[in-house]
Amino acid sequence: MASKKLRLAINLQWGVKYYLSGKEDITSMETWFFENQTGNFGIKIRIKSILHHEYSAFQEIAVYDTYEFGRMLVLDQAIMFTDINEFVYHEMLGLVPLFSHKAPKRILIIGGGDGGIIRECLKNPFVEHIDLVEIDKLVIDVSKEFFPEISSKLDDEKVNIITEDGIEFLKNVGDNDKYDVILVDSTDPVGPAEGLFKRDFYESTERALKDNGIFAAQTESPFFNKNLIRDISKIVKDVYIESALYCAMIPVYPSGSWSFTIGSKNYRPKDINESYKEFNFSNLNLKYYSPAVHSASFVLPNFIKDICK
Amino acid sequence: MASKKLRLAINLQWGVKYYLSGKEDITSMETWFFENQTGNFGIKIRIKSILHHEYSAFQEIAVYDTYEFGRMLVLDQAIMFTDINEFVYHEMLGLVPLFSHKAPKRILIIGGGDGGIIRECLKNPFVEHIDLVEIDKLVIDVSKEFFPEISSKLDDEKVNIITEDGIEFLKNVGDNDKYDVILVDSTDPVGPAEGLFKRDFYESTERALKDNGIFAAQTESPFFNKNLIRDISKIVKDVYIESALYCAMIPVYPSGSWSFTIGSKNYRPKDINESYKEFNFSNLNLKYYSPAVHSASFVLPNFIKDICK
Repeated sequence: MASKKLRLAINLQWGVKYYLSGKEDITSMETWFFENQTGNFGIKIRIKSILHHEYSAFQEIAVYDTYEFGRMLVLDQAIMFTDINEFVYHEMLGLVPLFSHKAPKRILIIGGGDGGIIRECLKNPFVEHIDLVEIDKLVIDVSKEFFPEISSKLDDEKVNIITEDGIEFLKNVGDNDKYDVILVDSTDPVGPAEGLFKRDFYESTERALKDNGIFAAQTESPFFNKNLIRDISKIVKDVYIESALYCAMIPVYPSGSWSFTIGSKNYRPKDINESYKEFNFSNLNLKYYSPAVHSASFVLPNFIKDICK
Repeated sequence: MASKKLRLAINLQWGVKYYLSGKEDITSMETWFFENQTGNFGIKIRIKSILHHEYSAFQEIAVYDTYEFGRMLVLDQAIMFTDINEFVYHEMLGLVPLFSHKAPKRILIIGGGDGGIIRECLKNPFVEHIDLVEIDKLVIDVSKEFFPEISSKLDDEKVNIITEDGIEFLKNVGDNDKYDVILVDSTDPVGPAEGLFKRDFYESTERALKDNGIFAAQTESPFFNKNLIRDISKIVKDVYIESALYCAMIPVYPSGSWSFTIGSKNYRPKDINESYKEFNFSNLNLKYYSPAVHSASFVLPNFIKDICK
């Protein structure tokens, strides 16, 4: 890439200044990353440097160092997470479905190559095996290099990483390989993740789950993506016996709040399963999730209830 | 103001184009309003026009017409509300304290000259009288002109509007004039609202409340304003017998989620009072609030619980 040398020079220059001054705010340069979240709304985040920039076979990958949020992963111009706030998304997509399940032993994660969801899933005491199917190996490599805390469990002995298209992978799950929980940790429904928001895909998750299986996916902003949420709610209601939407507060995501859709073959997802009655949550370094937050996240404001009707 | 003529000309030109084309997106002009929410984070909102701009004795007042959110009120460069999202803030600051109270007859609102909180308070069946103490009469006038739906109840017969400094007003509340509920609908803790975040002020609210009185205030973002929330929680705990924090999802406010602090002399604020057991909420045009949301909004993620400890 033509810009690589220039970028390197800028980073080196900043790095030297940083080292010399010993201060965090070492420059009066105002360098901003912009995310245009709708055609008419966006956010801006002041950056210290561009730590990494690369095109993979699937998408544009960038890592920034920011003043407000620590490091930040950006895929195709959309913020995936920041060091400071990643806990909300990862805890809420990882733990709500798992603690709704009586004993989730076999987990499938589609996407999530950064490892954040894996880190959270391993906090559930029943988990024996996690297959992570990430289409883009570079997301894994970049996360290992720049986000050591988030990717810390990618090499755990319970984890098996497969770099493949999740849609194809799901078609070939054998009867003896079915899962207790399937989680979809995807980018927005454009580009490589587009197929993860379609009826075929939801049906294939249902086939790849055991009889008591639970499915969950991130399903965008309840303020900005009402039509998408409405469509997915309908499909999940058709495909699964139980379906529900839950929400969490996630700064820097469009509108600052986010939805997750859950489908269940049996267990009622809205409360933690009674199998965790004696389980001690206090040692898990949970900054957002708790059994009480689990239930409360399903209590929806009227305007969101109306979307999912 | 020197810019008034120019602005008028631009508005007229846009207006004509709008009329001629019959389309909503009538211009390729990219005109953006920026709010710098911290030194290192901000949002941008694409605007159609600046409908109003004026300096009052207290602050800079602007009304924009936006593509994404309808009309928007901005005070001292900070967004107060937009047509599309105002329901969250107004319902949650207005209704949670009122429905925690057995029979809130006399209400005091400090700030809130736009009338949004009044509109919500009048949905409670016990309310007999509301004093609104707004320091800046221009906020009232501008809201009446540009936000007819939000300001619709400012002239209600139960409402008494006083244009005065809320801090001074509270000092002079007589023993026979005490309130059941006091709500503080303020701007951020800089400029005219600075005094509304200090211990003296909280103590004076306590003195102006009846024995069973409830106090509530907006207390900024749980992600960006942790120190402020920590300080206020401590004060409210000292001053009131019961204190609690609750949250709501509010797009365009910094971080997209917001906190409210409640102090109570008696009633437990976390659930609606049993006096509303038979009350029918379904005709109140509630887009966010419900008895279930009331309780769930007090269930705090661990990191927020830690702030208020």
